[in-house]
Amino acid sequence: MFPRRLSLFERQEFIMIGERLNYVNTPHVIAMVGLPARGKTYISKKLSRYLNWIGINTKVFNLGEYRRHATTAYKCHEFFRPDNVEAMAIRTQCAIDALDDVCTWLDNGGEVAVFDATNSTIERRQLILDIVVKKRGFKLFFVESVCDDPKIVEQNIMEVKINSPDYQSMGADVALRDFLQRIEHYQERYEPLDEVTESELSFMKIFNTGEKVLVRKHEGHIQARIVYYLMNIHIIPRTIYLTRHGESEWNKEGKIGGDSQLSPNGVKYAIALANYINEQNIKNLRVWTSWHYRTIQTASGVQAPQERWKSLNEIDAGVCDGKTYAMIKREYPEQFAARDKDKFAYRYPRGESYEDLVARLEPVIMELERQGNVLVVSHQAVFRCLLAYFLDKNSEELPYLEVPLHSLIKLTPVAYGCKMEQINFPIEAVNTHRPKPQEPGFLEDRFRDDVKDDIGGGDSTNGKKANNGDATLPT
Amino acid sequence: MFPRRLSLFERQEFIMIGERLNYVNTPHVIAMVGLPARGKTYISKKLSRYLNWIGINTKVFNLGEYRRHATTAYKCHEFFRPDNVEAMAIRTQCAIDALDDVCTWLDNGGEVAVFDATNSTIERRQLILDIVVKKRGFKLFFVESVCDDPKIVEQNIMEVKINSPDYQSMGADVALRDFLQRIEHYQERYEPLDEVTESELSFMKIFNTGEKVLVRKHEGHIQARIVYYLMNIHIIPRTIYLTRHGESEWNKEGKIGGDSQLSPNGVKYAIALANYINEQNIKNLRVWTSWHYRTIQTASGVQAPQERWKSLNEIDAGVCDGKTYAMIKREYPEQFAARDKDKFAYRYPRGESYEDLVARLEPVIMELERQGNVLVVSHQAVFRCLLAYFLDKNSEELPYLEVPLHSLIKLTPVAYGCKMEQINFPIEAVNTHRPKPQEPGFLEDRFRDDVKDDIGGGDSTNGKKANNGDATLPT
Repeated sequence: MFPRRLSLFERQEFIMIGERLNYVNTPHVIAMVGLPARGKTYISKKLSRYLNWIGINTKVFNLGEYRRHATTAYKCHEFFRPDNVEAMAIRTQCAIDALDDVCTWLDNGGEVAVFDATNSTIERRQLILDIVVKKRGFKLFFVESVCDDPKIVEQNIMEVKINSPDYQSMGADVALRDFLQRIEHYQERYEPLDEVTESELSFMKIFNTGEKVLVRKHEGHIQARIVYYLMNIHIIPRTIYLTRHGESEWNKEGKIGGDSQLSPNGVKYAIALANYINEQNIKNLRVWTSWHYRTIQTASGVQAPQERWKSLNEIDAGVCDGKTYAMIKREYPEQFAARDKDKFAYRYPRGESYEDLVARLEPVIMELERQGNVLVVSHQAVFRCLLAYFLDKNSEELPYLEVPLHSLIKLTPVAYGCKMEQINFPIEAVNTHRPKPQEPGFLEDRFRDDVKDDIGGGDSTNGKKANNGDATLPT
Repeated sequence: MFPRRLSLFERQEFIMIGERLNYVNTPHVIAMVGLPARGKTYISKKLSRYLNWIGINTKVFNLGEYRRHATTAYKCHEFFRPDNVEAMAIRTQCAIDALDDVCTWLDNGGEVAVFDATNSTIERRQLILDIVVKKRGFKLFFVESVCDDPKIVEQNIMEVKINSPDYQSMGADVALRDFLQRIEHYQERYEPLDEVTESELSFMKIFNTGEKVLVRKHEGHIQARIVYYLMNIHIIPRTIYLTRHGESEWNKEGKIGGDSQLSPNGVKYAIALANYINEQNIKNLRVWTSWHYRTIQTASGVQAPQERWKSLNEIDAGVCDGKTYAMIKREYPEQFAARDKDKFAYRYPRGESYEDLVARLEPVIMELERQGNVLVVSHQAVFRCLLAYFLDKNSEELPYLEVPLHSLIKLTPVAYGCKMEQINFPIEAVNTHRPKPQEPGFLEDRFRDDVKDDIGGGDSTNGKKANNGDATLPT
């Protein structure tokens, strides 16, 4: 029990358990409840994307997919009639199979399983409770989506249901009519979650996409977190614009980190960006920058309310901050082998890792979810993290996502995900992206590229310039 | 619109608007609803303490206090009979007076006013809506506490009500009986918030201290934040232990920041602390440390699950980190005048301010609220922030709170606040606390003390040692 001195290695081990680990002590099943076309899949996918991004290993189990595997091609709504005994047997078996897979997955390191199904009867929910809680000891939280606004339901059907594999060979009109009848079959037996007859359940009910929220017997960090997240999301159309600052003076000099001002080309980009955004007349646009000069300068011509977020600052390179690659190479040669091995978890000595950055950006994501149109002006590593959230990239892909200088990214929510467009401005800038090293033998190359790669360091040492000649800048 | 270069001064101005400012765009009234003894005052005070701490200017307006000012000494429950016409006129006038004060306060820079009253009829809530929203354009969010567990109600009465000024001259038994009759008078006319008849209202209902939560038409960041906070608090008795790390080697050398290991005296403290805590047999204790060696070492002998929080790291002194006072004084003489002027908002160049630290510690507070018994091992500036939350200290007091080395703080929730006890261990350590400078002329003294003060730098330059001879260590 003597508090002996710790080696750096031991401390790193301690640190690896980080502040994320206590999120999920017992594996959780989140079971959706609701009639078809109430946004259950939307919520499942979005929640899963968020939980994975904050470091909780999450997977969606969609019952529709089990049903499609178990049956021949979908014919019509008759399959879902409550008096269709044969079909009902198949459907129950599919649910049991899916729940088996859920439990197996949770036994093997999964932390949260989202069971995306209607689960619209007390009997079915009792089955889930038996399998998940009573037999296996996992935690169970139901999320019911209740929606009595026919407009929202029809919009949902037209956006996602008629593109379902079930309706591949049908016209949109036929599919819509079939789907509405399918809903009616469910409606006949639908029993909303009831706090009296189902008093032992922990659950959350969301009415009309968030107009009202009811939470009962919620328990623990993860459930509170899910409730908070689902209370903050909305489905009103909007666009999120992301851009890195214009090229900075340190970009050109090959120095990493720091707080330098824009280069002459960077200033050109700031002007072009402001012209472009101002011409769009974007309704209620808000501009967010980091606290660094280079992002504040880049956004300074945009006519919209501006806010500065420290959380949007570039990844902290710790002891490497402000150094050139040559200096870093001389002083910390061993760090870069470690970094290549696991770039996401690698932490600069006295600085940050991509994993730390995700934790720091969580409030930014929460606020972005709440907002309408926003232009975010920030940095390469930050945008890698934000894009990983919006585009559902895992932690291996995240640190290598391409986010070039002098280019504007437009994100628009569509169906279950996000559409990404990229507008390249024809203004010269150093290239700061390098792909994942393929040949681990060439330490020297890897090392130099890799550092640049993170902090937006420039490429002046080899004189290459990225001339975005194929830019698609409109107007 | 040319993005010209910014001076440091201009950038600081930008930064001052920070990430906190967009929390509250329109002033808010949070109006409590519920029968007497349902924890309305507890929620009001706790919420106000939290909101003020995260930087939102919040004040509680308690209707009971207005009533006590308006009437002669309280006699008995008869005052609250619904058919007591004279008393009812006084009570309505008090509500109007209080709401006037609420609006005046919000007009003069207040951000959130918590109106702590029963507001238990539709008529009264309509009056609030008229005054606050329709006449003044403020936002209004009702928070109703519903409790049908007689044990919780009686416990509440015994803990806080019988100590109310109303019952100063009565015995506990008489007071309890009178208060129960008072509740009955309210019960006669009580109309819980109703989503049909009061469909225009935004509100939250909390059932039996959180067993169920209902949220309707919530709008904006601040309301989501309030819901999340109130979902996370609990009233189960527990103790929070706070201690700084043992004396470190850099403490002794007078260097600030850094990541040094414990001094021999620091190691003695770590052993004494572990012995003390282990002997208490604290149920389900969890230990949280920062990522610094000195806190991990200090906690290493404590027999309980340990977690490391980067958020618990000491304030980042930026360019001053790792320097001695003499070096800082030579290199940044002008910084320290600025720091004395507003220590809470002062940010170390490339480092943090106390204000930044509070933002970083917000998730720690949220998780502490959710937990049971916890021992936190961290740093002086961090504990100043945490203590300001628990003891309701404002941002002027915060940076000067005393948190000596080799001393354990015990926080126990009582009534509307927290009881604090301090256990001093008789182990020598440098003294790192200096009070707020009284004579702004003596720059030299102020400057040296002040830096030490923040980062837990030692006092080796003048050789003084704090011998905690009056330690009250039990066993």
